[in-house]
Amino acid sequence: MIVEAAATLFSTRGYASASLNDIVAGTGMTKGAVYWHFPSKEEIALEIVRQMYASWPPLLGSVMAVHANALDALVACTYKAAEQFSSDLTTQAGKRLLAELPADALAKLPQPYVGWQGALCSLITDGQRRGEINDAVEPEGTAQAVVASFFGMQQVSWELTGRRDLVGRLDNFWKLVLPQLRPAAGGAAAADTSGEAG
Amino acid sequence: MIVEAAATLFSTRGYASASLNDIVAGTGMTKGAVYWHFPSKEEIALEIVRQMYASWPPLLGSVMAVHANALDALVACTYKAAEQFSSDLTTQAGKRLLAELPADALAKLPQPYVGWQGALCSLITDGQRRGEINDAVEPEGTAQAVVASFFGMQQVSWELTGRRDLVGRLDNFWKLVLPQLRPAAGGAAAADTSGEAG
Repeated sequence: MIVEAAATLFSTRGYASASLNDIVAGTGMTKGAVYWHFPSKEEIALEIVRQMYASWPPLLGSVMAVHANALDALVACTYKAAEQFSSDLTTQAGKRLLAELPADALAKLPQPYVGWQGALCSLITDGQRRGEINDAVEPEGTAQAVVASFFGMQQVSWELTGRRDLVGRLDNFWKLVLPQLRPAAGGAAAADTSGEAG
Repeated sequence: MIVEAAATLFSTRGYASASLNDIVAGTGMTKGAVYWHFPSKEEIALEIVRQMYASWPPLLGSVMAVHANALDALVACTYKAAEQFSSDLTTQAGKRLLAELPADALAKLPQPYVGWQGALCSLITDGQRRGEINDAVEPEGTAQAVVASFFGMQQVSWELTGRRDLVGRLDNFWKLVLPQLRPAAGGAAAADTSGEAG
């Protein structure tokens, strides 16, 4: 309840412009009750970012459960994350808070992006071992490029269209990058992005 | 003087946390003198973003003057922009302001990214016409992907390393994307990223 109310405010107005009083007003609770759970606005913001981080491993797990092929899974992760950025307030607020929280608050959180970079790097390495991803690409640099490009696309798409063109942007990105990742002729079946775009 | 002092504050503390008084203190001018130039904090912020936008066409021009080959120019643009993001306070502040200014202030500015998207789309189209970029890629989608990926890399690099790994991230991105853009065998000479990375 408190987290939802705060996420709504942080995602639309940003951290500095949303006061604890605004958040309290959004909850329908008394100020005392809100304070009992969270002693400060910063504590609520940290909880939102932690919930966003906690949502990624299940997201990755759900993608892996559906896609046995590592290259399919890699591509599907980005569409699934795009869906979450487009529909989930906690994620929208969490991403914005990471850019706006003061440095001493950020220091209480794990580093952003590195969890994703590590997960995608493992996925690429596993895929290469199984002949599903081209051996020639460097797993860590590729994972870093995919993660940063994803976050760039979601940010640009947010600023220009409220994330309405995010799926189209992912389609364009994968058209450009996927051929490099496909196993050389004779490897496992090539991945297909078209099923992810819906 | 005012713009420089404000850019320093906005780039490190963000828009909401930097007051007009803080900015005045940074200029060594009287409050009245600052107000004479800029009636509000928002006006200073808008000027910073406008100066950032105004810096892109000369940047693009300087790259085109050195690189006759369109694919070389496309790659070089991203390294040159990375250099500017790493060293120029107005650019650092401008980018942050675009994410933090209230909507009514943003409405007074041109849309972000679209200038870059248009410029790179023209560059790709020209390159295709001259056989320097592969005909098979779609110019607009490719330009959008490069622009969003660039801004993602600069943002992730800023948050994780204060932009120290930005050039390395660009190297990884181009390793992944460049093969798709190279003209099919028989086209013009292939681009080389190594000269841009220094």
